[in-house]
Amino acid sequence: MICSFNNDYSEGAHPSILQAMLESNLEQNDGYGLDAHSERARASILRELDRTDADIHFIPGGTQTNLLAIAAALRPHQAVVCAQTGHINVHETGAIEATGHKVLGMESPDGKLTPALIQAALDRHTDEHMVQPKMVYVSNSTEVGTQYTKAELEALSRFCRLHSLYLFLDGARLGSALTSPDNDLTMADLARLTDLFYIGGTKNGALFGEALVILHPDLKPDFRFLIKQRGAMMAKGWLLGLQFEHLFQNGLFYALAAHANEMAARLRAGITACGYPFRWESATNQLFPILPNPVMEALAEDFLFSTQEIVDQDHTCVRLVTSWATKPEYVEAFLEALKKLA
Amino acid sequence: MICSFNNDYSEGAHPSILQAMLESNLEQNDGYGLDAHSERARASILRELDRTDADIHFIPGGTQTNLLAIAAALRPHQAVVCAQTGHINVHETGAIEATGHKVLGMESPDGKLTPALIQAALDRHTDEHMVQPKMVYVSNSTEVGTQYTKAELEALSRFCRLHSLYLFLDGARLGSALTSPDNDLTMADLARLTDLFYIGGTKNGALFGEALVILHPDLKPDFRFLIKQRGAMMAKGWLLGLQFEHLFQNGLFYALAAHANEMAARLRAGITACGYPFRWESATNQLFPILPNPVMEALAEDFLFSTQEIVDQDHTCVRLVTSWATKPEYVEAFLEALKKLA
Amino acid sequence: MICSFNNDYSEGAHPSILQAMLESNLEQNDGYGLDAHSERARASILRELDRTDADIHFIPGGTQTNLLAIAAALRPHQAVVCAQTGHINVHETGAIEATGHKVLGMESPDGKLTPALIQAALDRHTDEHMVQPKMVYVSNSTEVGTQYTKAELEALSRFCRLHSLYLFLDGARLGSALTSPDNDLTMADLARLTDLFYIGGTKNGALFGEALVILHPDLKPDFRFLIKQRGAMMAKGWLLGLQFEHLFQNGLFYALAAHANEMAARLRAGITACGYPFRWESATNQLFPILPNPVMEALAEDFLFSTQEIVDQDHTCVRLVTSWATKPEYVEAFLEALKKLA
Amino acid sequence: MICSFNNDYSEGAHPSILQAMLESNLEQNDGYGLDAHSERARASILRELDRTDADIHFIPGGTQTNLLAIAAALRPHQAVVCAQTGHINVHETGAIEATGHKVLGMESPDGKLTPALIQAALDRHTDEHMVQPKMVYVSNSTEVGTQYTKAELEALSRFCRLHSLYLFLDGARLGSALTSPDNDLTMADLARLTDLFYIGGTKNGALFGEALVILHPDLKPDFRFLIKQRGAMMAKGWLLGLQFEHLFQNGLFYALAAHANEMAARLRAGITACGYPFRWESATNQLFPILPNPVMEALAEDFLFSTQEIVDQDHTCVRLVTSWATKPEYVEAFLEALKKLA
Repeated sequence: MICSFNNDYSEGAHPSILQAMLESNLEQNDGYGLDAHSERARASILRELDRTDADIHFIPGGTQTNLLAIAAALRPHQAVVCAQTGHINVHETGAIEATGHKVLGMESPDGKLTPALIQAALDRHTDEHMVQPKMVYVSNSTEVGTQYTKAELEALSRFCRLHSLYLFLDGARLGSALTSPDNDLTMADLARLTDLFYIGGTKNGALFGEALVILHPDLKPDFRFLIKQRGAMMAKGWLLGLQFEHLFQNGLFYALAAHANEMAARLRAGITACGYPFRWESATNQLFPILPNPVMEALAEDFLFSTQEIVDQDHTCVRLVTSWATKPEYVEAFLEALKKLA
Repeated sequence: MICSFNNDYSEGAHPSILQAMLESNLEQNDGYGLDAHSERARASILRELDRTDADIHFIPGGTQTNLLAIAAALRPHQAVVCAQTGHINVHETGAIEATGHKVLGMESPDGKLTPALIQAALDRHTDEHMVQPKMVYVSNSTEVGTQYTKAELEALSRFCRLHSLYLFLDGARLGSALTSPDNDLTMADLARLTDLFYIGGTKNGALFGEALVILHPDLKPDFRFLIKQRGAMMAKGWLLGLQFEHLFQNGLFYALAAHANEMAARLRAGITACGYPFRWESATNQLFPILPNPVMEALAEDFLFSTQEIVDQDHTCVRLVTSWATKPEYVEAFLEALKKLA
Repeated sequence: MICSFNNDYSEGAHPSILQAMLESNLEQNDGYGLDAHSERARASILRELDRTDADIHFIPGGTQTNLLAIAAALRPHQAVVCAQTGHINVHETGAIEATGHKVLGMESPDGKLTPALIQAALDRHTDEHMVQPKMVYVSNSTEVGTQYTKAELEALSRFCRLHSLYLFLDGARLGSALTSPDNDLTMADLARLTDLFYIGGTKNGALFGEALVILHPDLKPDFRFLIKQRGAMMAKGWLLGLQFEHLFQNGLFYALAAHANEMAARLRAGITACGYPFRWESATNQLFPILPNPVMEALAEDFLFSTQEIVDQDHTCVRLVTSWATKPEYVEAFLEALKKLA
Repeated sequence: MICSFNNDYSEGAHPSILQAMLESNLEQNDGYGLDAHSERARASILRELDRTDADIHFIPGGTQTNLLAIAAALRPHQAVVCAQTGHINVHETGAIEATGHKVLGMESPDGKLTPALIQAALDRHTDEHMVQPKMVYVSNSTEVGTQYTKAELEALSRFCRLHSLYLFLDGARLGSALTSPDNDLTMADLARLTDLFYIGGTKNGALFGEALVILHPDLKPDFRFLIKQRGAMMAKGWLLGLQFEHLFQNGLFYALAAHANEMAARLRAGITACGYPFRWESATNQLFPILPNPVMEALAEDFLFSTQEIVDQDHTCVRLVTSWATKPEYVEAFLEALKKLA
């Protein structure tokens, strides 16, 4: 194998983060996120958000963050609406249902929700014999590489507030969305438009860790109890704080994501040049080209990637993911191989 | 209002059942289903099943029975497959999810599952990042009035056993299914083909109560603990036993259901004669005619029924339900009114 | 066997209730508690409470009512405090834990809670590594036959309000408490002092059913969703309404309970006359005499009752329960047998 | 502050572990624990256990490991028995109850369980109205610094097997227990005597991570589904494998724990020499001396430690914890300060 485009968490952390970890290794820190690193990281993120009133919690992983955010917000009879392809609906082994809540997955052509799709969910759930939709879950970028514009997120936000629905944005790949050439959103916009969202570290250069930002005052009380109960409160919580402290110094978070996007853009250009179409349009770090099966199989000898879906008996949609650690020579090698197969 | 076709639980119990309750009222019985009436009712049902090895529990209501059966059978990561229209997927306020399990609703044209639909669910759930389908839920008759043939249920049973899936049949309206002219199934067939199923009393002449029949040996142990934990173990459990004892004396269970079907058949014939089509074919006690809106509205002045779905801007699919208590004169009045409106 | 003192739910319903059920049997009623009987029963209970602002829901059984009330009020990290002997802590097969909440059972000499005992629970739960006590559960009368005075309940209420704890009173045997000679509480007091409580029907002459009264405005919204989700919403909900309608006509509820207490008082006097002590003082319908084992064994040949605990190798504490249906001749027979054994 | 004896997770990781992380940082590894490091770590641990048939999963934290192990093993109505002081009973914010299971905490003088205490739990839970004890949870070393001898663990194991109870050992501080001078247990003994147990990394030199060892064949199937569902499956799972790979090379795991114990032994000797008693006997890395309040307060100016319980109005039991990172000069400084205060 030459290299992997299998996902954006195949390597460890950006070296400067590991270095910071090494340097602080023998410090004695307070546990459970009550340390100075976490405090400084929170201050940095608040500056990004241009806010002083958000609660910020650092959580080791994405599934934990999703289940915490959702289970904290909903009463037992309430449900969360998402796209059919939403991570919580498909790829978390029923983590949300395990907290007692139904996930209402709506068919969507591009992995995004719209007010119309949410309205359809509301229309179907009208009385106490059915669950009550109370939260909307979106991801940016989405599971199929697409992303929300500011106008789209504003429309969702307006709709949710009108209907007393919490708006939760899963930002596992938020870095890639915010640094995409198609993006017109800022962190401050997210803080303004959502009730809670998270900033993904695991897929953007941290060893692990997500920063959950809680805006809505009803969702803030006692959140640390919930973190502890779900086993998501790290004993050495400063390891999370320290990483986010570092990611938000000198714009490292954005630089790493921009690199991933740039590598994806080169891949996209090369694949397009070879004449292959894409299943979804994406200006982020996930690409979904449709390849003839023999081409896919030949590439699989040297490169690692996953299959997304079977298109027809001769073609398969594959998923290619770039990251902060993707080297330009990986991209070149891939495109060269592709050209030879064309 | 002349009368209600709104559902099959608008009246109390068949008078002979109430009479039996009255006669035994001052007996002192052991509580929690450990009484002689329940014992005799179990024996009667075992005779119907032509089995000696089934465990039978009497549960006050259908939602309880469904959640008990499903939560008892599944480990935390496992899911239940059903038709999109399945009662557990739509009309139980997330009762199954509240026990921690995902419900996988499959689009089905007629409210029934097929091996192909279950296979599709299996195909989409392939590894530990997704829930594991482990149980199949069907209802007979279904939520849209359709019913399974013996060949269909045999195919489902074979498929489930091949794939180590539990097959659970919701029989809230089992009486109507088994006495329908289209039926070729027996109680003994159900015991042979499913792993557990229930016989609905609430919608067929009992005050309340469902008889859950457990066939699969893995699902039997400790079931009474589960009943108690979910609040489904009646203190005066003999009230359940006494009703089923009575329903399975002299075929009362079947007679009541046959009456409901007969009333529905007359309605169906009359509606057809007026030229109105049906959304789903049904030979059971639920009918889904598509009516012009003015006709529907005029009927609603004298008769109670529910709307199922909007077909187009001029037509609505309504739901008419008959029961053991539906009087022939109700049916005649309805058809007469319909004829006048034609 | 001559008769049973095993519990207060060995017989059916008071005959006049069954009669009312019979008379209304063929009425067509709206389902799910939205019927005229339930409406009238609610109005009657509101009059008892001297309130217009309480929400009242009729629930088939006690365990359901307890788990609904508790799970509706608590967020995931919150716990309920009760006496070690509390029904929810011992006799509901973990029903509360099955909804996700810890039950904090406090040692109590008489089955009652005090502000000091609750304070002890608060003192032990001080940060986010521990559950957060948020509700207090008491029963009146208690599981060991004792009962709260108005002064005691006022002290609890004051303490709970001061510490933002919900106060929930399980009234499965509320009739017996309120008609006991030691009682100085009224229904209106309960409405004034608790946040929610229930009025037990099952153990006081109904076939089944408990009336849950919700006072605290935060606990009212969407409660019907929760009832449905837990399988506690009866299809033929008017059966519950009709029974409570009847119980609160002409004071039947109180008359039935007073009879049970009177029967217990006679038993208590006779047992005391024979020189046997009681494990707990009780002026309600449950008695806990301590008997020499040979006496207990001889009585068990003719009477049904349960053993509560082994006192020493020669003595056992047994539980005797009277009810609305206990006949004076049962009591006489028991006391006569006891005297002969003395 | 000179230094902290507050816990054994105040520093990062042993430097050689961080070094290994740094060296492998840019490797491309398969995610979710399916990598070569995890594979090698499993092989190393199997060698320690002298077994080939154990399943080993690496989990980020202790609360997660506890809730996974318990929720995987129990059916909904089953409970886990532990000492009243057990971590799962007190310090995990109801994490076990949040998975639906009751924790039965038994009063124990020394934080350990015995067959007699478990028998007492069984005696109290006799029918379907109560939860069913099915698992026994012990920790070694315990929350109060005590530890099990081989004879004690063999007695527990025999009792559990006789009564079909799973025996689960929480080894968050297993290193300290196994390297204590009082220890006569080996890893292989644990594998022979328990059904599942875990080897704590977080408190013994790893950045984070626990190795869960599953011995009982009934507990093995589908465990990875459960890990994922609870949010405990790290994307970069090799970070866990790499740490355990390293801990079990050249006996590092034992050397680090032995150092912690040696530091505690010196503290204990010095405190004893000053004439202060201990609340519990401990030969592990947690000490519970009882100090006069003025002494405690003076020490608290320079040293960080926690208070365990108030003994009387003049004395407090405090908790001192040493770790792999405790420097001998910390111990000397503490003892010197103590001597001056004597």
